[in-house]
Amino acid sequence: MRHKKRLLTPGPTPLPEEVRLTLAMDMIHHRKPGFKAVLSEIQEGLKDLFGTSQPVIPLASSGTGAMCAAVTNLFRPKEQVLIIEGGKFGERWGEIASFNHLDTVVVTVPWGKAVSRKHVEKAFAQYPDIKGVFVQASETSTGVLHPVRELAELTRDKDVMLVVDGISAVGVSPCPMDEWGLDALLTGSQKGLMLPPGLSFIALSERAWDRVAKVKPKDFYFNLAGEKAKIRDNQTLFTPAINLLMGLHTSLVILRERGLEEIYRKQWALTQLVRTGVRRLGLELLAKEHYTWGLTSVRLPAGVDGQRVLAAAAQEYGVVMAGGQGRLKGRIVRIGHMGHVDFGDLLAGLYALERALCACGGHSGARDFLEQGMRAYESALAEYKGGMSHV
Amino acid sequence: MRHKKRLLTPGPTPLPEEVRLTLAMDMIHHRKPGFKAVLSEIQEGLKDLFGTSQPVIPLASSGTGAMCAAVTNLFRPKEQVLIIEGGKFGERWGEIASFNHLDTVVVTVPWGKAVSRKHVEKAFAQYPDIKGVFVQASETSTGVLHPVRELAELTRDKDVMLVVDGISAVGVSPCPMDEWGLDALLTGSQKGLMLPPGLSFIALSERAWDRVAKVKPKDFYFNLAGEKAKIRDNQTLFTPAINLLMGLHTSLVILRERGLEEIYRKQWALTQLVRTGVRRLGLELLAKEHYTWGLTSVRLPAGVDGQRVLAAAAQEYGVVMAGGQGRLKGRIVRIGHMGHVDFGDLLAGLYALERALCACGGHSGARDFLEQGMRAYESALAEYKGGMSHV
Repeated sequence: MRHKKRLLTPGPTPLPEEVRLTLAMDMIHHRKPGFKAVLSEIQEGLKDLFGTSQPVIPLASSGTGAMCAAVTNLFRPKEQVLIIEGGKFGERWGEIASFNHLDTVVVTVPWGKAVSRKHVEKAFAQYPDIKGVFVQASETSTGVLHPVRELAELTRDKDVMLVVDGISAVGVSPCPMDEWGLDALLTGSQKGLMLPPGLSFIALSERAWDRVAKVKPKDFYFNLAGEKAKIRDNQTLFTPAINLLMGLHTSLVILRERGLEEIYRKQWALTQLVRTGVRRLGLELLAKEHYTWGLTSVRLPAGVDGQRVLAAAAQEYGVVMAGGQGRLKGRIVRIGHMGHVDFGDLLAGLYALERALCACGGHSGARDFLEQGMRAYESALAEYKGGMSHV
Repeated sequence: MRHKKRLLTPGPTPLPEEVRLTLAMDMIHHRKPGFKAVLSEIQEGLKDLFGTSQPVIPLASSGTGAMCAAVTNLFRPKEQVLIIEGGKFGERWGEIASFNHLDTVVVTVPWGKAVSRKHVEKAFAQYPDIKGVFVQASETSTGVLHPVRELAELTRDKDVMLVVDGISAVGVSPCPMDEWGLDALLTGSQKGLMLPPGLSFIALSERAWDRVAKVKPKDFYFNLAGEKAKIRDNQTLFTPAINLLMGLHTSLVILRERGLEEIYRKQWALTQLVRTGVRRLGLELLAKEHYTWGLTSVRLPAGVDGQRVLAAAAQEYGVVMAGGQGRLKGRIVRIGHMGHVDFGDLLAGLYALERALCACGGHSGARDFLEQGMRAYESALAEYKGGMSHV
């Protein structure tokens, strides 16, 4: 049977129709007044989303490009930095830092757990020369939410930059940069922003910009000081990804209409839907406590082949989910529920997961996992208090 | 009056409807078989376009990103390289090389002229340690075509890499990489490929790949050896710009249907249309001899303000052209005629240019510049011989 496709991967996420139609518009030139007005409105929308009064720099790159920009613009070779490594993207921070000759101290966290404040305090005590901390707000490979707000309490009064990869957090769960005291926050276009991949964004705190001025980075493409000077005039240093930025302009209008707190409320409720449904199926969640609001990682029962489960869900029910990355390859299923995804998509997703598991020698499942998921969703919607209390 | 918009800038260029509709398609996941099949077909199309049997690496970046990739992947700090600098993008080669601590020897060419073989021979004699030559096939800031084929005759038997920025040449005028013996050829998506900006592409010769293996570059984002290993499996190292690559798949189908020689014939004829029309208007062409086939730079009469001319053409006739860059700012108009542009667009463009010039205190113009332009176009179409004889 030819099914309607449902993309439930933790990036890319489905696109709203308005965004898709904007992406289809013919080209305009990027050095003319019309596009400058678009860039100006985009700046306002991105500042709201990041919770910052600082400029948010758009880059024509994947999210990894913005990660590279943070490393090369904020630190000099041989400076010591702390890497929080509890997943594939934590590992990536370490790789980028090593490539750029930083002296890395690594705090290893079991994949599926969040780093604790104590771990980081201990590292600071042991390595007083640490000048930066690299962490994921949301580790997309595991579905864990690291406590960046608490980490900022440790770094904001020290000469230590807190650099936060917000790739599956920005526009998904609260991460107000200025209020929390983050020094760098970055994201990609293909998650909460409901766009195709190809754009990344990074904002720096005032003291982080001071550091860039001192470091005098020699990264020609990821030149944040150069971009900052240009964005003041609503331009970019190099030819921008015009249609993706036009699409961003549209998606920011949609996000603003919904309101940030409403978006977080929905994300929180969708997360409860999936977690309850999965538990009701007798499956184990990878992230038990500190879980992200944009994806849910599910451990597969022993002996079940993850690739087969994903293929069955896609072929038989049109539901495309993601597998594990790195050391979790084949051992988990990741269900994405950020961006343009709603409860109906997730009901289809849970049903497809259950059927695929059965087809692959998993278990028979509970009979009421969909209803229980929806009850959890409705309760979460009603009880959500906002104010970031759920982090 | 509200006019139909006509984008006649040398990038971005207008998009064919099929490409625009593809850009509007909803997201698919980049690690699944469907997208791998697309990447595989894209490889075949790009190899044809570049004239190479080597892989063509797609990058999520502007064209400048691919320029950075060439510099950081092919050379070690302190190696001596020759920069051909006859425009803003020649200058950019020099800036990127200096940022990356290469020892640069610069051959300066007047903006509007092509480098000569003799210049380069002289530099080789004077600086025997030169390990690379950086040049534009087509210098987009002036509209000059540098003789890269002749330069390759000088480098191919030496231990010297010829690195060619083909940003406004690939898919516009012949530049067959393997046949000519270029060591690196790169381009961006927003010119001959008829796509929005946001993608770049680079291919290396066999001996250039050997050099990468020796250099062991430490560029995390622009990691060509890493991308080459991935592209064999129809994947990319980082999240690719999915919708732009889907659009590329469509534009490559269109280009293949037309055939490369037919595309070059049309580009050659459009160039004759514009050059003849402009001359007939009594205006001076910036590039007298070695001109590109995708844009034409026109000198403005003394005392005429370039910004006013461009604004008048856009406001009164809907025709968007580009001004000069760098030292040519305000002194020239650049008419783009690559990508999804035809003779009708250029008739409108020439007419708008003439009217705008008159409105800005230029001259009254000839009466038959449109007809003369079309006669030149028809003759060029009929007489075009192919086989790259017009370079």
